[in-house]
Amino acid sequence: MRVLVKGGTIVTAADTYVADVLVVDEKVQAIGQNLQAEAERVIDAKGKYVLPGAIDVHTHLDMPFGGTVSADDFLTGTRAAAMGGTTAVVDFAIQSKGKSLRDAFDTWQEKARGKACVDYGLHVAITDLPDPVLAEMPELVEAGVSSFKLFLAYKGSLMVDDATFFKALRKARESGALISFHGENGDVIDVLVKQMVAAGQVTPRYHALSRPPEAEAEATARAIALAEMAEAPIYVVHLSAALALDKVAAARDRGLPVYAETCPQYLLKSIEDYDEPEFGGAKYVCSPPLRDKANWPRLWSGLNTGHLQTVATDHCPFNFKGQKDMGRDNFAAIPNGVPGIETRLYLMYTAGVLGGKIGLNKMVDLIATTPAKLFGLYPDKGTVAVGADADLVVFDPAVEHTITASALHQNVDYTPYEGFKAKGAVAAVLSRGKVVAEGGKFVGQVGAGKYIVRKRFSA
Amino acid sequence: MRVLVKGGTIVTAADTYVADVLVVDEKVQAIGQNLQAEAERVIDAKGKYVLPGAIDVHTHLDMPFGGTVSADDFLTGTRAAAMGGTTAVVDFAIQSKGKSLRDAFDTWQEKARGKACVDYGLHVAITDLPDPVLAEMPELVEAGVSSFKLFLAYKGSLMVDDATFFKALRKARESGALISFHGENGDVIDVLVKQMVAAGQVTPRYHALSRPPEAEAEATARAIALAEMAEAPIYVVHLSAALALDKVAAARDRGLPVYAETCPQYLLKSIEDYDEPEFGGAKYVCSPPLRDKANWPRLWSGLNTGHLQTVATDHCPFNFKGQKDMGRDNFAAIPNGVPGIETRLYLMYTAGVLGGKIGLNKMVDLIATTPAKLFGLYPDKGTVAVGADADLVVFDPAVEHTITASALHQNVDYTPYEGFKAKGAVAAVLSRGKVVAEGGKFVGQVGAGKYIVRKRFSA
Amino acid sequence: MRVLVKGGTIVTAADTYVADVLVVDEKVQAIGQNLQAEAERVIDAKGKYVLPGAIDVHTHLDMPFGGTVSADDFLTGTRAAAMGGTTAVVDFAIQSKGKSLRDAFDTWQEKARGKACVDYGLHVAITDLPDPVLAEMPELVEAGVSSFKLFLAYKGSLMVDDATFFKALRKARESGALISFHGENGDVIDVLVKQMVAAGQVTPRYHALSRPPEAEAEATARAIALAEMAEAPIYVVHLSAALALDKVAAARDRGLPVYAETCPQYLLKSIEDYDEPEFGGAKYVCSPPLRDKANWPRLWSGLNTGHLQTVATDHCPFNFKGQKDMGRDNFAAIPNGVPGIETRLYLMYTAGVLGGKIGLNKMVDLIATTPAKLFGLYPDKGTVAVGADADLVVFDPAVEHTITASALHQNVDYTPYEGFKAKGAVAAVLSRGKVVAEGGKFVGQVGAGKYIVRKRFSA
Amino acid sequence: MRVLVKGGTIVTAADTYVADVLVVDEKVQAIGQNLQAEAERVIDAKGKYVLPGAIDVHTHLDMPFGGTVSADDFLTGTRAAAMGGTTAVVDFAIQSKGKSLRDAFDTWQEKARGKACVDYGLHVAITDLPDPVLAEMPELVEAGVSSFKLFLAYKGSLMVDDATFFKALRKARESGALISFHGENGDVIDVLVKQMVAAGQVTPRYHALSRPPEAEAEATARAIALAEMAEAPIYVVHLSAALALDKVAAARDRGLPVYAETCPQYLLKSIEDYDEPEFGGAKYVCSPPLRDKANWPRLWSGLNTGHLQTVATDHCPFNFKGQKDMGRDNFAAIPNGVPGIETRLYLMYTAGVLGGKIGLNKMVDLIATTPAKLFGLYPDKGTVAVGADADLVVFDPAVEHTITASALHQNVDYTPYEGFKAKGAVAAVLSRGKVVAEGGKFVGQVGAGKYIVRKRFSA
Repeated sequence: MRVLVKGGTIVTAADTYVADVLVVDEKVQAIGQNLQAEAERVIDAKGKYVLPGAIDVHTHLDMPFGGTVSADDFLTGTRAAAMGGTTAVVDFAIQSKGKSLRDAFDTWQEKARGKACVDYGLHVAITDLPDPVLAEMPELVEAGVSSFKLFLAYKGSLMVDDATFFKALRKARESGALISFHGENGDVIDVLVKQMVAAGQVTPRYHALSRPPEAEAEATARAIALAEMAEAPIYVVHLSAALALDKVAAARDRGLPVYAETCPQYLLKSIEDYDEPEFGGAKYVCSPPLRDKANWPRLWSGLNTGHLQTVATDHCPFNFKGQKDMGRDNFAAIPNGVPGIETRLYLMYTAGVLGGKIGLNKMVDLIATTPAKLFGLYPDKGTVAVGADADLVVFDPAVEHTITASALHQNVDYTPYEGFKAKGAVAAVLSRGKVVAEGGKFVGQVGAGKYIVRKRFSA
Repeated sequence: MRVLVKGGTIVTAADTYVADVLVVDEKVQAIGQNLQAEAERVIDAKGKYVLPGAIDVHTHLDMPFGGTVSADDFLTGTRAAAMGGTTAVVDFAIQSKGKSLRDAFDTWQEKARGKACVDYGLHVAITDLPDPVLAEMPELVEAGVSSFKLFLAYKGSLMVDDATFFKALRKARESGALISFHGENGDVIDVLVKQMVAAGQVTPRYHALSRPPEAEAEATARAIALAEMAEAPIYVVHLSAALALDKVAAARDRGLPVYAETCPQYLLKSIEDYDEPEFGGAKYVCSPPLRDKANWPRLWSGLNTGHLQTVATDHCPFNFKGQKDMGRDNFAAIPNGVPGIETRLYLMYTAGVLGGKIGLNKMVDLIATTPAKLFGLYPDKGTVAVGADADLVVFDPAVEHTITASALHQNVDYTPYEGFKAKGAVAAVLSRGKVVAEGGKFVGQVGAGKYIVRKRFSA
Repeated sequence: MRVLVKGGTIVTAADTYVADVLVVDEKVQAIGQNLQAEAERVIDAKGKYVLPGAIDVHTHLDMPFGGTVSADDFLTGTRAAAMGGTTAVVDFAIQSKGKSLRDAFDTWQEKARGKACVDYGLHVAITDLPDPVLAEMPELVEAGVSSFKLFLAYKGSLMVDDATFFKALRKARESGALISFHGENGDVIDVLVKQMVAAGQVTPRYHALSRPPEAEAEATARAIALAEMAEAPIYVVHLSAALALDKVAAARDRGLPVYAETCPQYLLKSIEDYDEPEFGGAKYVCSPPLRDKANWPRLWSGLNTGHLQTVATDHCPFNFKGQKDMGRDNFAAIPNGVPGIETRLYLMYTAGVLGGKIGLNKMVDLIATTPAKLFGLYPDKGTVAVGADADLVVFDPAVEHTITASALHQNVDYTPYEGFKAKGAVAAVLSRGKVVAEGGKFVGQVGAGKYIVRKRFSA
Repeated sequence: MRVLVKGGTIVTAADTYVADVLVVDEKVQAIGQNLQAEAERVIDAKGKYVLPGAIDVHTHLDMPFGGTVSADDFLTGTRAAAMGGTTAVVDFAIQSKGKSLRDAFDTWQEKARGKACVDYGLHVAITDLPDPVLAEMPELVEAGVSSFKLFLAYKGSLMVDDATFFKALRKARESGALISFHGENGDVIDVLVKQMVAAGQVTPRYHALSRPPEAEAEATARAIALAEMAEAPIYVVHLSAALALDKVAAARDRGLPVYAETCPQYLLKSIEDYDEPEFGGAKYVCSPPLRDKANWPRLWSGLNTGHLQTVATDHCPFNFKGQKDMGRDNFAAIPNGVPGIETRLYLMYTAGVLGGKIGLNKMVDLIATTPAKLFGLYPDKGTVAVGADADLVVFDPAVEHTITASALHQNVDYTPYEGFKAKGAVAAVLSRGKVVAEGGKFVGQVGAGKYIVRKRFSA
């Protein structure tokens, strides 16, 4: 099977140029001017960008949380991903306390079985680390899990203590894995939440007030210090606050291998959204919470300077009706998370590139190339290059559209970006050479997404 | 009873001048040139300094630790203090888990009963903080305990979690108390100690290696962050590492009410001392451990700049024979602590003032005035001023002597400063108007030291 | 002559206590409770503070500037100083280009002759430094000029280049003198002023816009760097911007001997004042200019932390009518300077101490003790201590009054603090044992102020 | 003319992959696996890297300095560049005082006429900026000079004052040009040099001692501050000291558009080299001078973190015999500069990539892609991409060789890297599609290098 993408403007993390792309089977075989190749399928990309398929290294599909389950499973979630130009996701398999890491891995593979519409990998989130579990880490790396996550928040459920964190860091370093972490001080938050609830401070805004940016900065600094002592690299997920970015920047300026991710919600939404009437603020309840707008330019600057290397979604959807409203009387009962797997590219292009915050190559770097490199998907994924997987997005910058939940493919009844005027739309998406999205429709095959055995961390 | 101290050079935190001091009963009544007063006792202080009695806000007398008890009790400890020019100590009453703070207070009052040779106050160290104990804090403040300490190290025994720490900070703020803390990350240290011991790395030097300066910097930064969120002041005890000082300096430069203490051992002794032959390194096993010498100039600079406000001793003596040697086969079994209650003034004057590191007024400020102010002993103590307690030290800068354990009054078989050539000696000490030390002899009355009901924190 | 100040609350940089002060001739002879001394004069200070006479180390009396002369000469200026509780000033003798430093010194001595109402010292401001002038510096130090100032602003008139600055620093270090400097980048300001004037941007607000805080921060950082290379101490006069304070703090945290002064106008007035109608903004034209209010808390914090050590006035008065209005059509023609020699104590006590920004001892330290120590007036001046000059202020905290130009003794037709509600008033002032102000009247003798041969710098 | 480069491993700033490259005339036409193209010339690149031709944005060819002229002219210099894998240089045309910028441009074009062996661009160095010269800047930009340089060092010759610098920054911003600068404080250096020479301190090491790193840090910070006030981007040439890097990092962390370059000599040679016997230290006399080795890891870290974006050579060759030895009796008479135009790629690959300091893509980014982007040569140059100039280097990583002056093509009698064991050699070089170097021989055409009309700065 040969596909010829003709005349597009190819954008990589480094370069921008006009050329044709010849795809043979699953791979890019050639890139050139006026390629004279026979192809079963020709896609006219003139005036359009040809981007590497985006990679989302932070999703929570089919995840139990607070007595409910996130609203997208691997089918609806990866399908929505594809529709939004994302051709690979790395989801979090979460260890149940008392069980093995392998159990988590198997459970999540089961969730994915026959459903994935694009390729996927798995991180494992460690919640409990007795010695036998510690010993499992290298085996998991062998199985393609070259990254683990730990939580410094969610006291009483997901949170680990510093000893666990430190042990995981040391073992990860030996095993060629990267440790990522949720950086908020769960102890402080626990005290504040209890106090606020006891005081009747139960509206969504108190979610944010119970999780101050200083609690994020503290946990971020602590994790970096532990990583420095363990001589291990570390990756901050969903960094939301400039105060935390300062800690990352200081560490990087000292030469430490510290990496950090932010998400569109922290670049575009703010603490003011918690005041949306009729409990609408619940839609934005995620952790870390949305911050003051003063953080926005600092985060954009961090993306440009390089202290923030990736933009992922932390897609963790819960329906407003039936899920978010479990916390109508108490913010602490609102399931944490916002949907975003489908909208990232639109937001980053319109607000980021067209908004003059970042360049086009930088956008590709943030949502595709660097995530691929940090998490062992590169060079198969994350770029447009000869020999790489033909995970391609033909992106039409001329199309304008308004983001609205009803037009999205995410299985959730709202989007935080309702009404956002986007410029630029996905015209076609190829996943390993097959067209999976086109003309606003999913045209791929459910279950065709493969599990990615990710390479060990090296950087 | 009237005592006239004639012709001395009075030194306060701000001023240096020659004058006579007239003491009537327990107080300083007048200071002047050629005071014409009748006095039962005249002390010729010509050519000598008249200093405020030093205050040691960090001592551990009669304290159980690791299956043994610190070698000085309130009698020998406060007597040695007096001999070294210290006229007030604030000792740590340590809560037993499951017991009340009041119980700790009472226990320590019992230890002190009839023994104290100079005045004393008590901090209470909190190790366990269920709600009823939390509720005790204001009562303790009422009883003169205007400061509490928590430990971020000593996992499994004294260490508290961040929630406890945060709750204590908030309650302290309400109650007018100051929280101090031992700043080392106990989780990391616990992992490292176990691993080192398992690997047969058991000599005293491993004590230091198991407690890296980064673990101190991390805990210090964390405590400051928690205090910032609690909007409470905070006091770092025994800061040993420049990396931790950086955290204090950054906080203070932002205007936060953060205070810090260091001790002579961190200014004068180093990690190299752990290599003293024949297990001699055990003498220096204290926590935080001695650091690389490169930290010394940074700490002196911190004292000068004002980021470090006090010098205390952390006097916690264990005999080399019979106590320190419990850890001959395993550094982790060495009782932690060094003696120092008697030698501080000599060290600070010789190494600090004569060594060109700090001025004489600054020395007085560090060992007397600021400790008195921070811990509620001022204006009765901590200065030479009309109306203040006549806690005075006549210090002869002309006398040279060599520090040696046998000549000291501490009840312990060694001193870390053995052989130190000191310039300047205590000629006489007055405690509330009574001469208690003179001619190298204790001439006071055992038990005459009173418990000090310390004032609430305000700064 | 004996004066007994009875029952006041004595405040020094370190201590606060109630006692009587016995003055004999020019000196404090005794301090005590219920001093039984015969005295020709008894001042009842009960309920009042007894403070050391304040010291103003930054005044410009009888100074030519921009074609006019500052409105206070040594008579009116030092008389106003006395009325406001300031018992010593250090004025700037400014070298004329092409002339010697000695010439400047002599010229200013001539200005002071027979006029000074309180004691005074002289700095010399260097504007031109060929080798013979450089060689004069030690001689001037010998004559009591232990500090020199250089300007990094005022291009074309007072400004020196970095080579001159660097040479002066090195020579000062050899000679035991302290270099102070006006820290603004004169080159940038010169370009901006010319451009603004050319563009018709001529109202007082443009004075501030032509002198951005970054220009102050730059010059401050540069001067510190030059001092570091010269291994010399340095003193920043009239620091106005938090950005510049950051540079001072960073240097001090590294242990460099950097000192800095701010002035009440930078703590209490802001850039908004330039918009006072009817050209009223001209009253606030001084350099550095008033800044955004956001700087205020940062400066107060710097005073507390110790990165700012002194508060002086930069008293440089020009009448609104006849002087300030020379620049009605062009801000660049407005003589630079604000009056303040008389109001400092009121402002610092009311806004600082009563406003909860600084403590009372700190206030004394900032306006008396540390200036005295840094500039070689201590221990004669700057404190209340036995043996010191009896330069004393009896300050009544109970009196309320409103600052208004007509009630002040400064020889200038306005005050920037018009309408300020002050709490606390000067009840009496002693200068070397003589009462010079009392009951709101100057009762001293014109010309009784002596030139102070200041000691060499040492710190 | 068609050239097929077969089977090489293509390396760009972002990607690494194996493919054939088809060159048609001057451009890359296609990149693919097993390209079936007819070609006049086939180059077997199997097992070799195919890199973009390196770009050297800092050279001084045929430059008058201190009474002599740099030893390479455009012929020998660009030929040596080609031999070392550099296919474009941007040289500095230096304005003579009193003359126009255009004059400098014309003079340098005359120097290059008929000689350039690879393409070249020109910066103009501004030494004198009266208004008519300021007005020329946009015209020069129009002529392809999209960058200007100013010197903060070389007092009395090249140095400009801050006003000139600031005006140039503002005009550059309007014109779409980037200002670069030599960052050392010329005033301080001038004082130190004179003093050292006067004291008989004349050996090469004093060159370094007269130019301390603090003088570089100061000038760097000042230039950044001026750029911030001018709201203009800025580029630091030849950054040598970690202290200066700290200033760059702080600015970038605040989001300022500050860029910086270092050179191989600052990564690999040190102040100790000045002690090479028999006046050998003179070989290393360049400005800024070589620094203490402790700077090396900090600079490598800066390259990795992204605070340093480029590595250029500052190629400024003077023969040891006949030029460097002009300063045998006085370091100040040694012409400043080291050769390096030919050796950069070897050094960066061996010491950087193989030494584990930087990745291969990063190396390409530093020596080709980012220089091309910052200085307006991109996308024609700086990458391997379809449509770009076929400026290609086939680099054989298997060849080992020892750097020695006699084997280099630079027209100078020594190399600072004599004896350096390099791994990896240039096998072939294409300049706009023509093979210019092969088998260690220059096979191109003298004068075939074209002047590059560089694009305006945008970033």
